[in-house]
Amino acid sequence: MAMFTAPGAYDRAITVFSPDGRLFQVEYALETVKRGSTVLGISCPEGVVLAAEERAASKLQDPTFSWKIFEIDEHLGAAISGLSSDARILINQARIFAQSNRLTYDELADVEVLSKRVGDIKQLYTQHAGVRPFGVSIIFGGVDSKGSKILQTDPSGAVWAYKAVSVGAGSDTVRGILEEKYRDDLKLEETLLLAVECLSKAIEGPIDPSKIKIVVIPAETRKIKKLSDSDITEYINKLET
Amino acid sequence: MAMFTAPGAYDRAITVFSPDGRLFQVEYALETVKRGSTVLGISCPEGVVLAAEERAASKLQDPTFSWKIFEIDEHLGAAISGLSSDARILINQARIFAQSNRLTYDELADVEVLSKRVGDIKQLYTQHAGVRPFGVSIIFGGVDSKGSKILQTDPSGAVWAYKAVSVGAGSDTVRGILEEKYRDDLKLEETLLLAVECLSKAIEGPIDPSKIKIVVIPAETRKIKKLSDSDITEYINKLET
Amino acid sequence: MAMFTAPGAYDRAITVFSPDGRLFQVEYALETVKRGSTVLGISCPEGVVLAAEERAASKLQDPTFSWKIFEIDEHLGAAISGLSSDARILINQARIFAQSNRLTYDELADVEVLSKRVGDIKQLYTQHAGVRPFGVSIIFGGVDSKGSKILQTDPSGAVWAYKAVSVGAGSDTVRGILEEKYRDDLKLEETLLLAVECLSKAIEGPIDPSKIKIVVIPAETRKIKKLSDSDITEYINKLET
Amino acid sequence: MAMFTAPGAYDRAITVFSPDGRLFQVEYALETVKRGSTVLGISCPEGVVLAAEERAASKLQDPTFSWKIFEIDEHLGAAISGLSSDARILINQARIFAQSNRLTYDELADVEVLSKRVGDIKQLYTQHAGVRPFGVSIIFGGVDSKGSKILQTDPSGAVWAYKAVSVGAGSDTVRGILEEKYRDDLKLEETLLLAVECLSKAIEGPIDPSKIKIVVIPAETRKIKKLSDSDITEYINKLET
Amino acid sequence: MAMFTAPGAYDRAITVFSPDGRLFQVEYALETVKRGSTVLGISCPEGVVLAAEERAASKLQDPTFSWKIFEIDEHLGAAISGLSSDARILINQARIFAQSNRLTYDELADVEVLSKRVGDIKQLYTQHAGVRPFGVSIIFGGVDSKGSKILQTDPSGAVWAYKAVSVGAGSDTVRGILEEKYRDDLKLEETLLLAVECLSKAIEGPIDPSKIKIVVIPAETRKIKKLSDSDITEYINKLET
Amino acid sequence: MAMFTAPGAYDRAITVFSPDGRLFQVEYALETVKRGSTVLGISCPEGVVLAAEERAASKLQDPTFSWKIFEIDEHLGAAISGLSSDARILINQARIFAQSNRLTYDELADVEVLSKRVGDIKQLYTQHAGVRPFGVSIIFGGVDSKGSKILQTDPSGAVWAYKAVSVGAGSDTVRGILEEKYRDDLKLEETLLLAVECLSKAIEGPIDPSKIKIVVIPAETRKIKKLSDSDITEYINKLET
Amino acid sequence: MAMFTAPGAYDRAITVFSPDGRLFQVEYALETVKRGSTVLGISCPEGVVLAAEERAASKLQDPTFSWKIFEIDEHLGAAISGLSSDARILINQARIFAQSNRLTYDELADVEVLSKRVGDIKQLYTQHAGVRPFGVSIIFGGVDSKGSKILQTDPSGAVWAYKAVSVGAGSDTVRGILEEKYRDDLKLEETLLLAVECLSKAIEGPIDPSKIKIVVIPAETRKIKKLSDSDITEYINKLET
Repeated sequence: MAMFTAPGAYDRAITVFSPDGRLFQVEYALETVKRGSTVLGISCPEGVVLAAEERAASKLQDPTFSWKIFEIDEHLGAAISGLSSDARILINQARIFAQSNRLTYDELADVEVLSKRVGDIKQLYTQHAGVRPFGVSIIFGGVDSKGSKILQTDPSGAVWAYKAVSVGAGSDTVRGILEEKYRDDLKLEETLLLAVECLSKAIEGPIDPSKIKIVVIPAETRKIKKLSDSDITEYINKLET
Repeated sequence: MAMFTAPGAYDRAITVFSPDGRLFQVEYALETVKRGSTVLGISCPEGVVLAAEERAASKLQDPTFSWKIFEIDEHLGAAISGLSSDARILINQARIFAQSNRLTYDELADVEVLSKRVGDIKQLYTQHAGVRPFGVSIIFGGVDSKGSKILQTDPSGAVWAYKAVSVGAGSDTVRGILEEKYRDDLKLEETLLLAVECLSKAIEGPIDPSKIKIVVIPAETRKIKKLSDSDITEYINKLET
Repeated sequence: MAMFTAPGAYDRAITVFSPDGRLFQVEYALETVKRGSTVLGISCPEGVVLAAEERAASKLQDPTFSWKIFEIDEHLGAAISGLSSDARILINQARIFAQSNRLTYDELADVEVLSKRVGDIKQLYTQHAGVRPFGVSIIFGGVDSKGSKILQTDPSGAVWAYKAVSVGAGSDTVRGILEEKYRDDLKLEETLLLAVECLSKAIEGPIDPSKIKIVVIPAETRKIKKLSDSDITEYINKLET
Repeated sequence: MAMFTAPGAYDRAITVFSPDGRLFQVEYALETVKRGSTVLGISCPEGVVLAAEERAASKLQDPTFSWKIFEIDEHLGAAISGLSSDARILINQARIFAQSNRLTYDELADVEVLSKRVGDIKQLYTQHAGVRPFGVSIIFGGVDSKGSKILQTDPSGAVWAYKAVSVGAGSDTVRGILEEKYRDDLKLEETLLLAVECLSKAIEGPIDPSKIKIVVIPAETRKIKKLSDSDITEYINKLET
Repeated sequence: MAMFTAPGAYDRAITVFSPDGRLFQVEYALETVKRGSTVLGISCPEGVVLAAEERAASKLQDPTFSWKIFEIDEHLGAAISGLSSDARILINQARIFAQSNRLTYDELADVEVLSKRVGDIKQLYTQHAGVRPFGVSIIFGGVDSKGSKILQTDPSGAVWAYKAVSVGAGSDTVRGILEEKYRDDLKLEETLLLAVECLSKAIEGPIDPSKIKIVVIPAETRKIKKLSDSDITEYINKLET
Repeated sequence: MAMFTAPGAYDRAITVFSPDGRLFQVEYALETVKRGSTVLGISCPEGVVLAAEERAASKLQDPTFSWKIFEIDEHLGAAISGLSSDARILINQARIFAQSNRLTYDELADVEVLSKRVGDIKQLYTQHAGVRPFGVSIIFGGVDSKGSKILQTDPSGAVWAYKAVSVGAGSDTVRGILEEKYRDDLKLEETLLLAVECLSKAIEGPIDPSKIKIVVIPAETRKIKKLSDSDITEYINKLET
Repeated sequence: MAMFTAPGAYDRAITVFSPDGRLFQVEYALETVKRGSTVLGISCPEGVVLAAEERAASKLQDPTFSWKIFEIDEHLGAAISGLSSDARILINQARIFAQSNRLTYDELADVEVLSKRVGDIKQLYTQHAGVRPFGVSIIFGGVDSKGSKILQTDPSGAVWAYKAVSVGAGSDTVRGILEEKYRDDLKLEETLLLAVECLSKAIEGPIDPSKIKIVVIPAETRKIKKLSDSDITEYINKLET
């Protein structure tokens, strides 16, 4: 209970507003996201690309294990930045929603509806006492009956639709590149190359395939596909030429 | 626990009154609304108009995605200002109420009854511990069996009926224009033009259709309709002449 | 946690008494009522009158919308002063009680029994943690099998029966007039005139019908009736002559 | 959180003892009772008398409305001092107990058993967090199969049986008179006169029937009966002679 | 939150240990017991005696009402010291246990088992938040299939078996007498005389039967019996000779 | 809330870790155990011995009453040190587990499984708010299908298996003796003598049978047996020779 | 409530983020793990090895009792570092999951799925009030249908897959050795030797079999097997040559 910091009184309990109408706990949770790995999503008419920087904590980590990009359903993936354990809870919820959508309606889940459902769960954790907000932002990308879709949710539970978006430590860098180079008529190949370019500039030090995970959901197949290390190397090489 | 600010003791816990009978948390939630986007609603005998400033966070946002104006039912829309995730929870509740009204009574929901229902939910969050108030004001507009209706709820859960009303950062500006120019016998076309005029004065910088979202519910059809960018441009042009 | 104000320790948590046996939260809630609109109720053998000052927040408010006087049932109305959202919750409860009384016993609700039921709800919110008291006083007026009845409940949940009573900002003024002019054998017309006189003195500035709402429940019909603006103007004119 | 008042730490939370084994909240609730109206109960072989000072808040109060003395059942009444809204909750519980006793056993409720039941409810509110004690003392008086009975419960939930007892602002005065004049063989008429004498000395200013409420339960009929104003005047006159 | 008293931090919340492993709330509850009336229990082969000092708050109290010694079942009594309302809750529980033991097993309740059951309830109130310990110690005395039994429980819920024991304000005095004069082969008459002697020395001022309550449970009959005032006077007279 | 002692902030609420990863409440509960009576358990191929110092609070305590050593089932006993009321709750749970094991599987409870079950209950009370840890350590000793077993649980809920172990005030002394003299091939008679030797050195002042309670569970019979005072005297005499 | 340490305000309540987005309670729980015994897991194509330092608290502990390494199912083991009572709760949950997997699907539990399930439980305890995080890290090792698997969960509930990993006091030392000597094509014998080498360097003082516990799950048998002391001695000897 610091005696000289006026905001001190408002930033500990999630259920209260500060006198200027802010929710400090939500803002602090965003700090966790800002320190997280850089992830991004880009849509184009031919499909959707999700990409993430994977910061290996040790060279003995299992390279086949993914903790930044997840398959929600065949046509729908997610890239997360922030607390990985918080993300897992929400990813599970998203998968359950997608599955029960299939079972109930015999249809692929709508990407916007699913994103809002996850946002609703997050909002609950910003309004009720006894819990803290989820310390994670998620980019959902998929191709549904309305086409290629990218949506993002932050710790407040807000949901926005984007053509292309990035969160995490390098997101400012990535946004600069996207705002410069994104075009509505990008081909899927160009989109993949753009994703690799974004990450290669956002990641510190020399880039190599072990630091990057990429999935693509082509509009044609609506089947999520993980790029192999050699695929990624190819794009890195193209970039350098 | 500031030692020198007497009010400090009353403004953190939602369940208590200050010695002069105020609920600080509700007042602070209103601050969030005051910093929000400008939204407005105007009724006239021929129908109802809802309009909102959309502050795009990035030019890569999806322009087809709406986060200020929502359809509740065919005859009934809502414009929100404040926390968008809080708003979504209440919009969902309003939609459920409208749907179940249709199913149970085979009737369109009464705009006032629905607005009070949402106000009741908000009130609950100002009287019980363990939650914070909803940081959002909502303008409900629609045409029901009693005619064109505009109602507004604030974070306290209070509900008022208006002929025309605005909330958000530019609401003082808008209110000035409305009090000057509103007439009970406005035509729908005049009402739309008045809405565009209000927003164009409340929004900083040059106005263009990407910054404005408008829906109209004509009394004749009772079917909510979103104005296209070219429709909006037309009204802007009319204003400038 | 002010260091120099001894009462500071007792006035935040609703569940505790101060050393001199006071419940500060209830007293603070009363402050809200004291700052509210002036409302009053007067009974006479021929019926009951409820009247309220309506402070319009904007000249664009819908004049047909009532937020100070409510019909509970045909024979029974309520006038409120304080937080309008808190009042709505209790008015809903009163309506439900009146309806279920009709259904269960095929009888009009007894005004005293209904008032105490609402008082019981209020009391609960003064004794249990996790909630704040209701910031509203309510005057119930009606004609039941025992005749014309006026009862009042404050935020503590206490209920008192009166011949005539007023709460809100101008209640001291009104009480002075009532104590001087009230007679047990007032006619209904005289009672209405007395109500208008009370409000006209309690309201600041020149009086006009837009600032006043009045309902009357004649003992003969037991049907609540709202006075029209022209009815009210007539009484104002009588006063001035 | 006063820094210089050691007891400060123990008197806010109901669930804790002070180092010397006291429950401050219960003691503070008693303060409310000590400031309340004077009420008393006296038993004699021929029956039981309950009497109360009624402090009218306004001369416009309804004189037929009782808020100090209540009928629990035909053979059993209660006089309360302290918070009237708290009392109403307990009076309701007592009535429910008396009714269900009648239904279950086809017998009048035992006065002692009923008093202890109410005491048990009060005790609960002194041992559990999240509630405050009831700020009211109740004198139960009645004639059951064991004869004339007077019992009293205070905010701690303790219950004592008395021949004659008083609580409220003037209870010290009343106790002095009772200890001097009470006899085990008082006739009912003498008991009524003693009750009026006690109140007339405890009430400030000249006494008149509007300030006093009295009920009597004769052992012969076991039917509670309220004294009329003229009955009371008669006793006042007898006193003065 | 006293700034200079280190223990201050540990003695308010029941659920915590102090750094030296003490539970302050339990110790404070014991203070209540130490200030309570003196009660005692003595067993001998021919039966069990329970005795209590009754401190009348007023000479108008009903002398037939007991609030220190209670019958649990025919063969089993209890003497309490501390908060009488807390005691009543536990006495009720003990009676329910004894009754259900009779119904279920057609047997008299075992005194030790019943005492531990009450101790278990007390323990719960020392380990869980949201409640305070019971501020009462109870001496259970009875004759069951194992013979004459005296057990005592304090606010911690601990249970001990004794040949003879005392709690309350005068317990040190009583213990001194018991340790000096108690013999395993006391006759019941001698035990009763010893009980009267103990109380007569523990009670301040001259002793008379109105200050003492005694019950005896002879091993022969296993039927609890209250001593009359003349019985007690006889023992007092014997003492003085 | 001491201002100068940094740990002050962490040691009151059970649900938090201190910055160096300690749970103060668990450590404080251990202080209670360290001040408790000395108890010990020793296993040998021929069986298991549990022994306890019984500190009589008064010479009038019932010598047949045990509050340090308990029978859980025929083949299984427990010796406790710390709060006796906390212990009783856990002993009850252990007995219920043993009984239901018999009923469900028709087998004697496994000593390790039962000890862990009790440890699990204890752990719950160290991780959840609203409760305090159990202030007791328990040594379980028994002979099951795997042979002679001694296990110990402390307030954290940790469980360890030992050949011989001691807790309580004199446990350091006992441990020294055990580490010196314990052999895997002790005979039961030697084990009993060792137990008496340990206690005689740990107990202050001259030793006599009234200060010691011992039970033995021979592997041959698997039937717990309490040593008589004369048995214990015999071992004391052997020691002294 | 230290007055000079700003973080003090954030590190006590589990449900809040600090201003820089950290969860102090989770970090403090990790301190417990960092002070725990060194444990490790290594996978190779031929199987999986789990090894732990066992720090005996006393030489009288039962050497056959394991509290660092546990069998979850035949094909799956766990090594823990931190609070052993917290670990036991999670180990129980893991066993229940494995058993119900067998019963429901007639399949061995997938090591990754089971690890995440345990991680989910841990995450719950970092987001909800009224509980503290689990103070334990667990290494799960097993051979399932996807081959040899090593996963680790920390107190935040995060889960990572490794080829080889260590936690506890000596984990930095072990990680150094593993990063130097681990190869993807290690034979099981080499893996076991590597495990012993790692522990022998991480443990202070001379190494002997009593300080080490090792289990191996060969891919061939998928049956967990504990190494005997003589097996371990053999590896120690090999190391020294």
